[in-house]
Amino acid sequence: MERPTPGDRPAEPAGGPLSRRALLAGGALAAGGVVAAGVAAVRGSTGDGPGPAPAPAAELGGLMVPFYGAHQAGVETPAQAHAAFVALDLAEGVDRAALRRMMLVLTDAAARLTQGRAPLADGQPELAHLPSRLTVTFGFGPRLFDVAGLAGRRPASLEQLPAFGIDRLQERWSGGDVLLQLCADDPLTVAHAQRMLVKDARSFATVRWVQRGFRRGRGMQGDGVTQRNVLGQLDGTGNPAPGTPAFAGAVWTDAGPAWLHGGTTVVVRRIRAELEAWDATGTAGKESAVGRRLSDGAPLTGRHELDEPDLTAKDAHGRPVIPELSHIARAQVGSDRLRIFRRAYNYDEPPAPDGTADSGLVFASFQRDVGEQFVPIQRRLAEADLMNEWITPIGSAVFAVPPGCAPGGWIGEGLLR
Amino acid sequence: MERPTPGDRPAEPAGGPLSRRALLAGGALAAGGVVAAGVAAVRGSTGDGPGPAPAPAAELGGLMVPFYGAHQAGVETPAQAHAAFVALDLAEGVDRAALRRMMLVLTDAAARLTQGRAPLADGQPELAHLPSRLTVTFGFGPRLFDVAGLAGRRPASLEQLPAFGIDRLQERWSGGDVLLQLCADDPLTVAHAQRMLVKDARSFATVRWVQRGFRRGRGMQGDGVTQRNVLGQLDGTGNPAPGTPAFAGAVWTDAGPAWLHGGTTVVVRRIRAELEAWDATGTAGKESAVGRRLSDGAPLTGRHELDEPDLTAKDAHGRPVIPELSHIARAQVGSDRLRIFRRAYNYDEPPAPDGTADSGLVFASFQRDVGEQFVPIQRRLAEADLMNEWITPIGSAVFAVPPGCAPGGWIGEGLLR
Repeated sequence: MERPTPGDRPAEPAGGPLSRRALLAGGALAAGGVVAAGVAAVRGSTGDGPGPAPAPAAELGGLMVPFYGAHQAGVETPAQAHAAFVALDLAEGVDRAALRRMMLVLTDAAARLTQGRAPLADGQPELAHLPSRLTVTFGFGPRLFDVAGLAGRRPASLEQLPAFGIDRLQERWSGGDVLLQLCADDPLTVAHAQRMLVKDARSFATVRWVQRGFRRGRGMQGDGVTQRNVLGQLDGTGNPAPGTPAFAGAVWTDAGPAWLHGGTTVVVRRIRAELEAWDATGTAGKESAVGRRLSDGAPLTGRHELDEPDLTAKDAHGRPVIPELSHIARAQVGSDRLRIFRRAYNYDEPPAPDGTADSGLVFASFQRDVGEQFVPIQRRLAEADLMNEWITPIGSAVFAVPPGCAPGGWIGEGLLR
Repeated sequence: MERPTPGDRPAEPAGGPLSRRALLAGGALAAGGVVAAGVAAVRGSTGDGPGPAPAPAAELGGLMVPFYGAHQAGVETPAQAHAAFVALDLAEGVDRAALRRMMLVLTDAAARLTQGRAPLADGQPELAHLPSRLTVTFGFGPRLFDVAGLAGRRPASLEQLPAFGIDRLQERWSGGDVLLQLCADDPLTVAHAQRMLVKDARSFATVRWVQRGFRRGRGMQGDGVTQRNVLGQLDGTGNPAPGTPAFAGAVWTDAGPAWLHGGTTVVVRRIRAELEAWDATGTAGKESAVGRRLSDGAPLTGRHELDEPDLTAKDAHGRPVIPELSHIARAQVGSDRLRIFRRAYNYDEPPAPDGTADSGLVFASFQRDVGEQFVPIQRRLAEADLMNEWITPIGSAVFAVPPGCAPGGWIGEGLLR
């Protein structure tokens, strides 16, 4: 009773009719055509061949984000609902040749999974058929360059971040040689993809930490609506807009080692929210700390979320309407090229027996250069930011995110080949 | 700069135009009218009054399941994408009067949260505005009856399950005096509701365990399509169909103590999936163990998922097509009234450093009577079930689930009043 399952089929190019731009531009519920295309693409890749036809992948689960391209997906991609950040430690004895093999294997698995196809060794190929905008984004930690004998090609500022006064870092959430950032709108898709990739990496590395995160579910609110984090704040308002020159200038690396051009860097920080204290704070106090209204995210000087904050505006008593020590005032930068792109997820672990929450943000920020962009902002915030009373960094890691690759290529080839 | 937020408003009846039946019957994507009604209901409850209008709750996030009714929601409700099972231990000194106060407070908070309204003490009322089909279902564990001085009104078979040979139970996932089952399509909604309820319970109880679970994301596949679990199996195929007499006869208690009539019981078991061994098993072996095809869930004797398994059918060699020790053969029961209703979620915790998965099912089954329905099935499965090679129960708890209540009432009033 042998019956080939769709996932066992050889890889074929899939998702042809779906351009990256279409996926970036259009929410599925708003743009029926995109949904239809997504469904058609999945049906096309599974409906032929022998054996019973699998249930058609329908609705949002069929949407795919192209894997191949100038940049890795999962950065400019509108944030999916679920994420797993997986940090790996390279095993002893792994050298550049082994790293190359590992990245070949992982790239192949990621390319398949993101297009709704099971990797070759997938024991549950049925779980690969709803990609739900799965992206897999690879990062290289500082020590990888030493392991590979390529210390000279490490970007100058790609190193453990300086210690900040507000940090209470735990080893269990910090560091790592390789990052796998998996994001998809469906949590089972993330779980399955994570397992397949961790399995493939097993001969080369151990799991250092996994941080699961979530945002508002896909389709729960209008597309493009800024999400709220566990503190109830609209989170991500000031981001450079994907697809704009401001985004490209801030995020895609264009200086330093040539192999990273078209790539970026990512800082992953685990930031605990002190929810008990936050609860005990009144709305006015919370809004002063952030510099924005909680209800709609508008700056205290504006009427709408996207209004530019006016840091010079004074109230009737001559005091700044947006406090000088508020989060948005302290995080302000002088030019578009110095901005960072935040792509944060919420985390929520079981509370302590007494009910104290263990909740916060898996903060991920992408920027051309960690030293030029992230570190100065973080230093200013650590020095003074009213929000520091309610947030505590407990984990920290940095990774270089290589550029994308073309079909037949693999992530990291510019460095490791 | 005081500005009332919508969540601070007094409770009003909400969701009027949405009948339970409409929500049960129609998938949101298929039934545009239901979505529109849900959105309208949320807008209606937040769009009046002073202050800036909040962003309208749109799309699926606005859908609500009525809280009040003959039965508690979250049983017959089509399973939402995310769940938190929270078990509480009653604090020393808590008596029947204190239990009554606790259930009054928790009922009020649950009634509000499920209708998109913040509880009175909510520090982040903005997070309450996307109920996304939130349900809160309360259960009472065996010890609660002793604490309340009501041992005589405990259903006879509501006790810790007998030990089964396959069990490897861990204290950290077992037992509990009170169960809160929170389900919603949006993970942030679950996290926020959990925190509010745990906070309200704090004066009365401590948190014994929390099990988070997920199913396919809402809208990822067609409504009514059976979900796959982490083993890749279609999970829930043989369930009695909500809304049918078979469901009512199997699930809603109609004998024993009168206070539980219209209620039910729930068994929550944490079942670890031995994914490494499962991976190493071929498709034919897996399908024999289950008695169904992996690709489409059809019984090995049928063509479609919903075809009735034919346990008498023989192959050319005279052997049963569906092995006698397969899961579906062993789980078979003699009448509709003896069936159980499974409403399981997947779990997936971070893997071990060597990559070994920590994944499985938060298995929840609802039935009139634990002793009459669940125990005999579980006993047969524990004695012999080919699937036992790949699944291990590591947690177990049972709760009586009181009937629902009317506006002004509270859950458990029939027992504790």
